[in-house]
Amino acid sequence: MSNKMWGGRFGAEPDAVMEEINASIDFDRALYAQDIAASKAHAEMLARQAIISGEDAAGIARGLDTILSEIEGGTFSFKRSLEDIHTHIEARLAELIGPAAGRLHTARSRNDQVATDLKLWVRDAVDRIDAALAAYQHALAQKALDHAATVMPGLTHLQTAQPVTFGHHLLAYVEMAARDRGRFADARARLNECPLGAAALAGTSFPIDRDITASALGFDRPAANSLDAVADRDFVLEALAAAAITAVHLSRFAEEIVVFTSPLVGLLKLSDKFTTGSSIMPQKRNPDAAELVRAKTGRIIGALDALLVVMKGLPLAYQKDRSRRSRCRSQP
Amino acid sequence: MSNKMWGGRFGAEPDAVMEEINASIDFDRALYAQDIAASKAHAEMLARQAIISGEDAAGIARGLDTILSEIEGGTFSFKRSLEDIHTHIEARLAELIGPAAGRLHTARSRNDQVATDLKLWVRDAVDRIDAALAAYQHALAQKALDHAATVMPGLTHLQTAQPVTFGHHLLAYVEMAARDRGRFADARARLNECPLGAAALAGTSFPIDRDITASALGFDRPAANSLDAVADRDFVLEALAAAAITAVHLSRFAEEIVVFTSPLVGLLKLSDKFTTGSSIMPQKRNPDAAELVRAKTGRIIGALDALLVVMKGLPLAYQKDRSRRSRCRSQP
Amino acid sequence: MSNKMWGGRFGAEPDAVMEEINASIDFDRALYAQDIAASKAHAEMLARQAIISGEDAAGIARGLDTILSEIEGGTFSFKRSLEDIHTHIEARLAELIGPAAGRLHTARSRNDQVATDLKLWVRDAVDRIDAALAAYQHALAQKALDHAATVMPGLTHLQTAQPVTFGHHLLAYVEMAARDRGRFADARARLNECPLGAAALAGTSFPIDRDITASALGFDRPAANSLDAVADRDFVLEALAAAAITAVHLSRFAEEIVVFTSPLVGLLKLSDKFTTGSSIMPQKRNPDAAELVRAKTGRIIGALDALLVVMKGLPLAYQKDRSRRSRCRSQP
Amino acid sequence: MSNKMWGGRFGAEPDAVMEEINASIDFDRALYAQDIAASKAHAEMLARQAIISGEDAAGIARGLDTILSEIEGGTFSFKRSLEDIHTHIEARLAELIGPAAGRLHTARSRNDQVATDLKLWVRDAVDRIDAALAAYQHALAQKALDHAATVMPGLTHLQTAQPVTFGHHLLAYVEMAARDRGRFADARARLNECPLGAAALAGTSFPIDRDITASALGFDRPAANSLDAVADRDFVLEALAAAAITAVHLSRFAEEIVVFTSPLVGLLKLSDKFTTGSSIMPQKRNPDAAELVRAKTGRIIGALDALLVVMKGLPLAYQKDRSRRSRCRSQP
Repeated sequence: MSNKMWGGRFGAEPDAVMEEINASIDFDRALYAQDIAASKAHAEMLARQAIISGEDAAGIARGLDTILSEIEGGTFSFKRSLEDIHTHIEARLAELIGPAAGRLHTARSRNDQVATDLKLWVRDAVDRIDAALAAYQHALAQKALDHAATVMPGLTHLQTAQPVTFGHHLLAYVEMAARDRGRFADARARLNECPLGAAALAGTSFPIDRDITASALGFDRPAANSLDAVADRDFVLEALAAAAITAVHLSRFAEEIVVFTSPLVGLLKLSDKFTTGSSIMPQKRNPDAAELVRAKTGRIIGALDALLVVMKGLPLAYQKDRSRRSRCRSQP
Repeated sequence: MSNKMWGGRFGAEPDAVMEEINASIDFDRALYAQDIAASKAHAEMLARQAIISGEDAAGIARGLDTILSEIEGGTFSFKRSLEDIHTHIEARLAELIGPAAGRLHTARSRNDQVATDLKLWVRDAVDRIDAALAAYQHALAQKALDHAATVMPGLTHLQTAQPVTFGHHLLAYVEMAARDRGRFADARARLNECPLGAAALAGTSFPIDRDITASALGFDRPAANSLDAVADRDFVLEALAAAAITAVHLSRFAEEIVVFTSPLVGLLKLSDKFTTGSSIMPQKRNPDAAELVRAKTGRIIGALDALLVVMKGLPLAYQKDRSRRSRCRSQP
Repeated sequence: MSNKMWGGRFGAEPDAVMEEINASIDFDRALYAQDIAASKAHAEMLARQAIISGEDAAGIARGLDTILSEIEGGTFSFKRSLEDIHTHIEARLAELIGPAAGRLHTARSRNDQVATDLKLWVRDAVDRIDAALAAYQHALAQKALDHAATVMPGLTHLQTAQPVTFGHHLLAYVEMAARDRGRFADARARLNECPLGAAALAGTSFPIDRDITASALGFDRPAANSLDAVADRDFVLEALAAAAITAVHLSRFAEEIVVFTSPLVGLLKLSDKFTTGSSIMPQKRNPDAAELVRAKTGRIIGALDALLVVMKGLPLAYQKDRSRRSRCRSQP
Repeated sequence: MSNKMWGGRFGAEPDAVMEEINASIDFDRALYAQDIAASKAHAEMLARQAIISGEDAAGIARGLDTILSEIEGGTFSFKRSLEDIHTHIEARLAELIGPAAGRLHTARSRNDQVATDLKLWVRDAVDRIDAALAAYQHALAQKALDHAATVMPGLTHLQTAQPVTFGHHLLAYVEMAARDRGRFADARARLNECPLGAAALAGTSFPIDRDITASALGFDRPAANSLDAVADRDFVLEALAAAAITAVHLSRFAEEIVVFTSPLVGLLKLSDKFTTGSSIMPQKRNPDAAELVRAKTGRIIGALDALLVVMKGLPLAYQKDRSRRSRCRSQP
């Protein structure tokens, strides 16, 4: 008999093909840290609400910490038949602490668990992106200062129009990045409502305290509607849209680098540290880094497009379409 | 000799094909009201700064008001050879008030003029959308109140999961719409910096006052960088992204209506006012309105995609790619 | 009482908003010629099969010819309340020839009528595109001949790599266009099966002859499955995909024109006939035509994307999503 | 000093970040089999043309065979610093057979090598897809036969319209799959021209025989234009477009399965082998497999979109944008 969580009533074993496409572990292992953090907060709340014992909660916390270091240390064992990161962690937890592991999932469903993990992951990603954009702005502004008086042709239609300075030119990108950071900040604020407690779609009758878990995980408040909490992924769409616009901005700068460093134009020279050469043509200084930045725009626009397509026309409250297995690896 | 603004130095007349694809009047006439409002504010500022006379400014304002009523009254004459809405308005203004018309464009370029018109148009569109979404929320909330106790199956994977109420179900969409309005509000705030004064790309040496025009047109401040001010259209991308997410939300509700009102399901019945029938099958009550809402999602996602493609890899500061002629009619 | 074809059984009048969004006449009037041609073929087949009288068929044909010249002459009267091009034509036909007009629609449904019109329209569009691409290839090849020996830098990463000739460079685009034409030709062959006779979705019991209408309209054969015949729009997707790839090819050539004619590069000079100038900067020769070609890529990719989104997850056999009203004006 | 192929003339070492984003080995290792096959054909042609010795060619072939089994056996060592699959294979070949390894790349460039590998990979993928679609058609047709007389409601707008049979319904999908296979077959024929011999972009002066390598690798002929041969990726776009349309077809069938197997509808029942259950709701039979198929549509449409964006506006003949590093893992 298989290890399936739900197999009891079913007559036939899942088809091997079914198992193959249903397994999302390749994709959602990226969520391990968020899943563990959220489970710890949930277990602690369950204990505070006397739904599980303090002892169980402590055992769960210790077990989860162990699992965290096993995953980060590379010693954790992943297998396809365990479907996803959640079943993996629960199975390992049971190995570590016995039956108490089963109590972790009390008053919780995969639906609100996954929605919470995903929000935490996107929030962390947004924070990383914001830091990178800030550094980018700083580097641009520094160079702009150095070149505040360096005259260069201002271009429209790639035709010389009126003189500007290179510093002024770079500051245009600083402005764009400021708006990009603003979009990410707004997205972060908007997503910061905690789904935990929505359970499968209609809440739970256990006497949970949603404010405790929301607060513990850095959310501003619990999400208001249980169906919306488990059903919507618009926070991912919003983050992807912000990323797509950011990528378009970067692609414009990248295009300029490719054109201005071309020997046909010769306005800029790129450091050796960011070009590549050719084995047979020694004159080559290829602006590969810029070209890759420009090209990534395609991948990000494609990811936004993909999720818009997936979400279109999906009724409430949950479908497998929403799972990570159906999406490109660049998303969790 | 043609009526072109720039023909003097050119040896040959523009090719007829060139004229055909360069004309944007079919597309940008939608901007007439914003263009007139912005021109009036610009003329008034020019007069206050003693760059043109008060008399000229007054004549320009009166002329523009006349043009506004001619366009709204349907008596304004549009012709392909006049390229776009701006040349149309300027040509008519010259007919109405003589040479003073030419002074309107002092200290201004098509680049900052168009960027400003477009921002005003998008801002007005966002306001209309917000009002519509608020009304939608209100209607949903009203019905939710009526059905606060109407039990219905809560579904996951379109399988009956746990009971919820129809009211609770509708409130999920109220939450989604709240986030949609939030995105539009954030986009509106972010776009609210006035490009006027950036001129072609590098400002102007005329003693203009950018705060006067910004304030007169309801902007929070003048845009900081002249290249960015004329070059970026990310405010359109952001509004389109908000629209795409909103459309996806509406498509989910529409899908539910189509499924739940199907005689195969029979959970809901739609009013005759929003269905259509069939000439040969009298049993038919087709949920056309819902299907159209669901389908519009495609058009909006396509518009977002189109503009992302256009903007990718475009150097500063202006290209014809940015013009309305290259875009779908659903955008100005 | 309204003029609705299906109103009889309904208690309430359609809501004004419903009428507004249901009307597709703004969009599908582009199909008038195909609709008339297909109706004439259908009427003639009905007469040959003795389903209607020869007299009726002749009257219908004459009436349709009259309507064709009215539309082409600009004297045909379009009104929103008549929903779409089909009801318009039928209403006018009734005015012209009386009750016989009603017999045109015998053994036919809007579903197979529309699918057929759309295939005819796409087929005609593909023929126009193929002719244009052939002319484009010819022009390129002619210029390639002239420049068979004109040495120019061959570029990779916009870095000078190895010398080639301008003629050889242009022939690359001739090759791409050849493959584009191949894709359109394959799409044309694949769509060339006639939907007529599928009726709403399950055929008709009238003794029609599907081969007669298929042949009369230049199709290779009747479509094999009635549900597929009315349900699928993949022939539009395939044509749009061919168009998107063609547009990408053209955008590459356009990009080269913009870069190579830039005074920063100075490799090519563009005729005055395809550039525009600037009122205040006489040195400007803006490659607007090339920029517009490059930008149109966005619109076409957006149209392909939009229809893919609309078709995703649509069950058989017909929904209003498929109607022209839900799509961008650039499509019929 | 690094192991870079082109470092000699450069003053500074590549930046670590540069190395990170330039490495494509994570992505292009999927091409190993095609790369090895193409290299073997190239070496053999070089020997037949007396450009390298028969001894060298034999040693190269043996070495490549060894590498093939090392990679397939999982013993091959991959490292980031070796950039991509090609440098990996060349480095290992040198370890195995000494200086003769360097002669493999005679009269060849990364540009034509990569274009060839990619064509071979796509061709193999198309063959696999065709076989899968044929099996799918067969399974549908088999079931259609079983249900040739099973009456079911034919639906339009998900409203019951006219009776059809389940067999007739399934055959609609057989028709769609036939067209999908046609598109893939056309794409396969169109891509079947060999880039080898185009070298970097302008051919090579070595006395190679392009027909030998083209024929050895199953191509119909060598590609006609060297710039086009290395520059275009429209064969990938065409295959992705065929995949997107196929995915849309499958998503429609998937949607029907989800709706028809819903207990709200109860038209079909899905085998346990393709559903999943729920730990707390034993009534659940979730049509996960169908939902995943429907959702994959998003990923494939996103991949098509991404590559269209990347290719838009790219001049000839090669940029890093084209490299696998810039694309989603679902593509080679």
